[in-house]
Amino acid sequence: MSYNTFGHMFRVTTWGESHGPAIGCVVDGCPPRLALSEEDIQPFLDRRRPGQSSFTTQRREPDEVRICSGVFEGLSTGTPISLVIENTDQRSKDYGEIAQTFRPGHADLAYQTKYGIRDYRGGGRSSARETAMRVAAGAIARRVLGDGVKIRGALVQIGQHEVDRSRWDWSEVERNPFFAPDPGIVPIWEEYLSGIRKAGSSVGAVVEIVAEGVQPGLGAPIYGKLDADLAAALMSINAVKAVEIGDGFATAAYTGPENADALRMQDGHPVFETNHAGGILGGISTGQPIVARFAVKPTSSMLIPVPSVSLSGEEVQVVTKGRHDPCVGIRAVPVGEAMLACVLADHLLRHRGQVGSL
Amino acid sequence: MSYNTFGHMFRVTTWGESHGPAIGCVVDGCPPRLALSEEDIQPFLDRRRPGQSSFTTQRREPDEVRICSGVFEGLSTGTPISLVIENTDQRSKDYGEIAQTFRPGHADLAYQTKYGIRDYRGGGRSSARETAMRVAAGAIARRVLGDGVKIRGALVQIGQHEVDRSRWDWSEVERNPFFAPDPGIVPIWEEYLSGIRKAGSSVGAVVEIVAEGVQPGLGAPIYGKLDADLAAALMSINAVKAVEIGDGFATAAYTGPENADALRMQDGHPVFETNHAGGILGGISTGQPIVARFAVKPTSSMLIPVPSVSLSGEEVQVVTKGRHDPCVGIRAVPVGEAMLACVLADHLLRHRGQVGSL
Amino acid sequence: MSYNTFGHMFRVTTWGESHGPAIGCVVDGCPPRLALSEEDIQPFLDRRRPGQSSFTTQRREPDEVRICSGVFEGLSTGTPISLVIENTDQRSKDYGEIAQTFRPGHADLAYQTKYGIRDYRGGGRSSARETAMRVAAGAIARRVLGDGVKIRGALVQIGQHEVDRSRWDWSEVERNPFFAPDPGIVPIWEEYLSGIRKAGSSVGAVVEIVAEGVQPGLGAPIYGKLDADLAAALMSINAVKAVEIGDGFATAAYTGPENADALRMQDGHPVFETNHAGGILGGISTGQPIVARFAVKPTSSMLIPVPSVSLSGEEVQVVTKGRHDPCVGIRAVPVGEAMLACVLADHLLRHRGQVGSL
Amino acid sequence: MSYNTFGHMFRVTTWGESHGPAIGCVVDGCPPRLALSEEDIQPFLDRRRPGQSSFTTQRREPDEVRICSGVFEGLSTGTPISLVIENTDQRSKDYGEIAQTFRPGHADLAYQTKYGIRDYRGGGRSSARETAMRVAAGAIARRVLGDGVKIRGALVQIGQHEVDRSRWDWSEVERNPFFAPDPGIVPIWEEYLSGIRKAGSSVGAVVEIVAEGVQPGLGAPIYGKLDADLAAALMSINAVKAVEIGDGFATAAYTGPENADALRMQDGHPVFETNHAGGILGGISTGQPIVARFAVKPTSSMLIPVPSVSLSGEEVQVVTKGRHDPCVGIRAVPVGEAMLACVLADHLLRHRGQVGSL
Repeated sequence: MSYNTFGHMFRVTTWGESHGPAIGCVVDGCPPRLALSEEDIQPFLDRRRPGQSSFTTQRREPDEVRICSGVFEGLSTGTPISLVIENTDQRSKDYGEIAQTFRPGHADLAYQTKYGIRDYRGGGRSSARETAMRVAAGAIARRVLGDGVKIRGALVQIGQHEVDRSRWDWSEVERNPFFAPDPGIVPIWEEYLSGIRKAGSSVGAVVEIVAEGVQPGLGAPIYGKLDADLAAALMSINAVKAVEIGDGFATAAYTGPENADALRMQDGHPVFETNHAGGILGGISTGQPIVARFAVKPTSSMLIPVPSVSLSGEEVQVVTKGRHDPCVGIRAVPVGEAMLACVLADHLLRHRGQVGSL
Repeated sequence: MSYNTFGHMFRVTTWGESHGPAIGCVVDGCPPRLALSEEDIQPFLDRRRPGQSSFTTQRREPDEVRICSGVFEGLSTGTPISLVIENTDQRSKDYGEIAQTFRPGHADLAYQTKYGIRDYRGGGRSSARETAMRVAAGAIARRVLGDGVKIRGALVQIGQHEVDRSRWDWSEVERNPFFAPDPGIVPIWEEYLSGIRKAGSSVGAVVEIVAEGVQPGLGAPIYGKLDADLAAALMSINAVKAVEIGDGFATAAYTGPENADALRMQDGHPVFETNHAGGILGGISTGQPIVARFAVKPTSSMLIPVPSVSLSGEEVQVVTKGRHDPCVGIRAVPVGEAMLACVLADHLLRHRGQVGSL
Repeated sequence: MSYNTFGHMFRVTTWGESHGPAIGCVVDGCPPRLALSEEDIQPFLDRRRPGQSSFTTQRREPDEVRICSGVFEGLSTGTPISLVIENTDQRSKDYGEIAQTFRPGHADLAYQTKYGIRDYRGGGRSSARETAMRVAAGAIARRVLGDGVKIRGALVQIGQHEVDRSRWDWSEVERNPFFAPDPGIVPIWEEYLSGIRKAGSSVGAVVEIVAEGVQPGLGAPIYGKLDADLAAALMSINAVKAVEIGDGFATAAYTGPENADALRMQDGHPVFETNHAGGILGGISTGQPIVARFAVKPTSSMLIPVPSVSLSGEEVQVVTKGRHDPCVGIRAVPVGEAMLACVLADHLLRHRGQVGSL
Repeated sequence: MSYNTFGHMFRVTTWGESHGPAIGCVVDGCPPRLALSEEDIQPFLDRRRPGQSSFTTQRREPDEVRICSGVFEGLSTGTPISLVIENTDQRSKDYGEIAQTFRPGHADLAYQTKYGIRDYRGGGRSSARETAMRVAAGAIARRVLGDGVKIRGALVQIGQHEVDRSRWDWSEVERNPFFAPDPGIVPIWEEYLSGIRKAGSSVGAVVEIVAEGVQPGLGAPIYGKLDADLAAALMSINAVKAVEIGDGFATAAYTGPENADALRMQDGHPVFETNHAGGILGGISTGQPIVARFAVKPTSSMLIPVPSVSLSGEEVQVVTKGRHDPCVGIRAVPVGEAMLACVLADHLLRHRGQVGSL
């Protein structure tokens, strides 16, 4: 079963609610003797941390991670690694109103219907706050993968404004508050998103993540395909509604010759001429860069009223006054990277288990 | 682990290669006392069967399913249900050539790299022949869901030719060889696909699947979300490169108010005004129709030569002479329906386990 | 996979080392709306707590449990329940010596060989301290089972001294420091165990656990049999070397008629005349009391020297000076009860998932 | 979940009923490129086959296994291996009576209560016929373990008659119909069991299994301990009521010094002086022989009448006229070996996955 656990050999179990005392995760199955400390994890959490610009929620959380087990004298021991982050800025009063009403587009009603109860404070378990632990686990996953694997993400679309791929520059990603790989789009997004924020609205986005240096052979057909697990991993991120690998939906319009990534020999090894497949064929990594994109819908928490219903069955207009992200897709970039890292680490161990050393 | 098993409470394990003696599956966890016989499964297999028009592979397989266990006197017993289909039309001679070369865009090379061996006959394990067992398992899953749940699929795009949604008519789907819901697109696709076939080429497609009558509350956040499991299920189908739920990628361009499905009261129950969410919020079904789409890339087996390499490291031009589907997306329609049925059946049992009767 | 997770629908993941900052567990899959607070868990932890008599380790731990998630306004929410206990009395200096040597009979060498590293402080992950979290999880499992199920345990043997079953009285169990159900054995055990303790030695024991009021039908043949899962659960407790259900090893000497629990009708229901089967037939609960016993070997930490080797490959005499339990089997009583509760809760949910309400 | 699946990386799923058309299993996760054919599996099935002496059931089954997938040109491919055995000697008429009554000590009533239906022919799913597939899977597991690991089993007790361990000779095991390692016990067992058979009765037994050459480090604490998984594996065998590792229940009477397996250096490696632990410490293999024993209760199918009830609620005397094993423990020897092989193969792959090559 996999309610709150992700992965098989490299397993991540997360827990915690937005406004509970703390959030945390347990990473089980990590190989022993990997150098690991809080300093290896914190930088990734800092990239995702809220409140760093006017374009993300103003919740102020240091998100300071603490390793509570599984590491001894700076090395992983092979036993479960427990990570905990205390919640410090809950401000429960902001959220009092949502106890009685359901935000359209939000998980409020779905949780209430399923469980007959919900922790409504800040979205409870369905809050994107949970993604902090994905990022923390992803940092450990990167250690498992080693320095030869480079995992990066970028925002490629906000609303209807897409990046110009001809200007793609990975080094730009860390230089603007949007993780934009195209410096030309930054002022456009700034102006557009300021308007969205001032209007009390929100907007969707598309994130692209890429893993380079992944060895061929990862992925376990038929139902443990690398792309199937990656699709689940990305779709499980809050607000994600679509996932594609390589050229994705565009391949529906391709003919066979347009789609086929031709092969040739180079230095005694087969290499691909193109990468329409996004580095995965038959559910198995090919050695090419793994490329995936996912769509993040706009936050349902906003100041613009939407017709809704209350817990007691009355029709109401819902307005969410609390802090929120005008474009939650921005902070989804490090989360997407982390999920890709976790999927790859899991498949690395699974492949090594079945097939042996690499 | 889930190499060749799908699901948790309703578990499907498939086995078999394209040109082995047989293919089969084991369905474990099926509730007892469901009426079940081969006659309940065969019609779904017949819809997927190859060779029914000039637009699918000419392989002639009766695909006759046999229940070997788990059913007694016409009722499921709660023990594992074993289904077997004998392979009758393998014609291995057609595929001799591919033993030595790798089809670009195909899983050939990936399997060889991963395992150091592959059954190259007809694609071996990576053949879409495996999907027959998904369809068979899906027929059992429909029994678990009961008559109140209606699962249907349609082809909505071939190459660049999309259906006109204003003409959508579910009753048309069974009246043409494409599962097209729009009678107006049928002659266009016929002409287009005849050209593709005559040119020895292939083309991609988009499939849409819908489940109506699904109770609210199915789906287990965070890592057993209904949409995450559905994304994995659909992405695991051969040649699928993209999955979206509800409005999917389009939501990236939406603002919050455009995306929010407003709620109102009707007969004492909350109802949604729209269904941008595709029936799933926070990973949990809302009671609205569940809507998903997936892109199927063009088959890599075709008569048009593509540059490739051989097992011995030579550069070659690969041409696949065997029978193949010019648009493998057509036969993916019943497969997509089956995977949706399996995911829902699994989540129905998982929900009942945790939360109790519904 | 199940490295540090136990159960399927009711899933317990534990983490933590003997001398780390804290230990904890995550209980996932708990049904919603169960009344739950620290007060429901603490009494069970108190029964297992060390330092309550001269017959258990003198480590002083309040073992105060804190619920960090999954409970809202006194009710479970269906989301993961995180429990944490801070370690307060580590006294690492006691254990310095064992960093360099391996205690015969202990997991020291096995961990070192497997992982190439170990947290040697107090046994690290292999310490029986981990069982505190089993007891905490078991308290939640009891809530899932409800008041109709009564789970109790008793110590039935220390060294060669067995209880007299003709004097069995459950109410005695809480009146002596041994969980003995036979008041007549208490002075015998006191004298015997005082001698063991003064000699710096240790001794084994047998624990019996019983669950009454368990509904028939729990257990999922073939590989999810109730007794198979129970055997794994009990064997996974530190120092356990044997498990038996019902009459266990004695049945090897029985003839068929001696073993068969005859049936008769009573008030319209079939009842059993005897319970040699220990409440489980074919891996499924029969409605009779579930009875299991397990053997706990003597602690390997003791003051009597044993020939061993050091990390650097020298032959040494190992003496363990730290605090330890002269008969670790005593504190295994509440642990055994907890594991039985967890197994039953898991199977209750699994059964309800497959077969429906009961 | 693990209803009818055993293992994690090396996964065995079995299916089939005693009197259905066939039984089978799917072995998933097998490493690729292992030499494998029916000839590697059949000899193990032949050892377990019924009807080979007057001391086992007279059902005549050739038990001829057929590999239906996962092997290509004599080598495993890494894809699921499907094994099928046709049932040829069902003789359903023998079992007509048991449709209406419940054999005391048998799973009949438990299945009926759990599922509300049962295939009563020959015990249906609960028949020991299922163990044929365990033996088949075990043969593949031995291939995974390689020739360096030797797994053997023997019968050590029938009724109250135990072997004399001072006369233990492994080569005797294949020379008598009991798998007895002690030639002196054979005439005693022959006479005793002939009496049991003639009386229409049955009797219990104890089986001992040993694996030599197992590398240290296998086993994944805490909840994937090698002995915990082995306990589940053995307890899941039909009619097994008890399991012990190493000295098992006897350790309850040991003091610490009696239990500790002292260590010394030999050729630069630590070696143990004794093996009370049965080759497992802390849930991890130590490199010593792994030793386990399990008790098999007497068959509940016998000619001696026992008071019971009928499906319609009447009190009856049950007599089972069909063919049966007077001592089902005999044929449990190869089954126990197979389960040990499967557990070790699974843990070998799991260990390799987490920790790397060995």
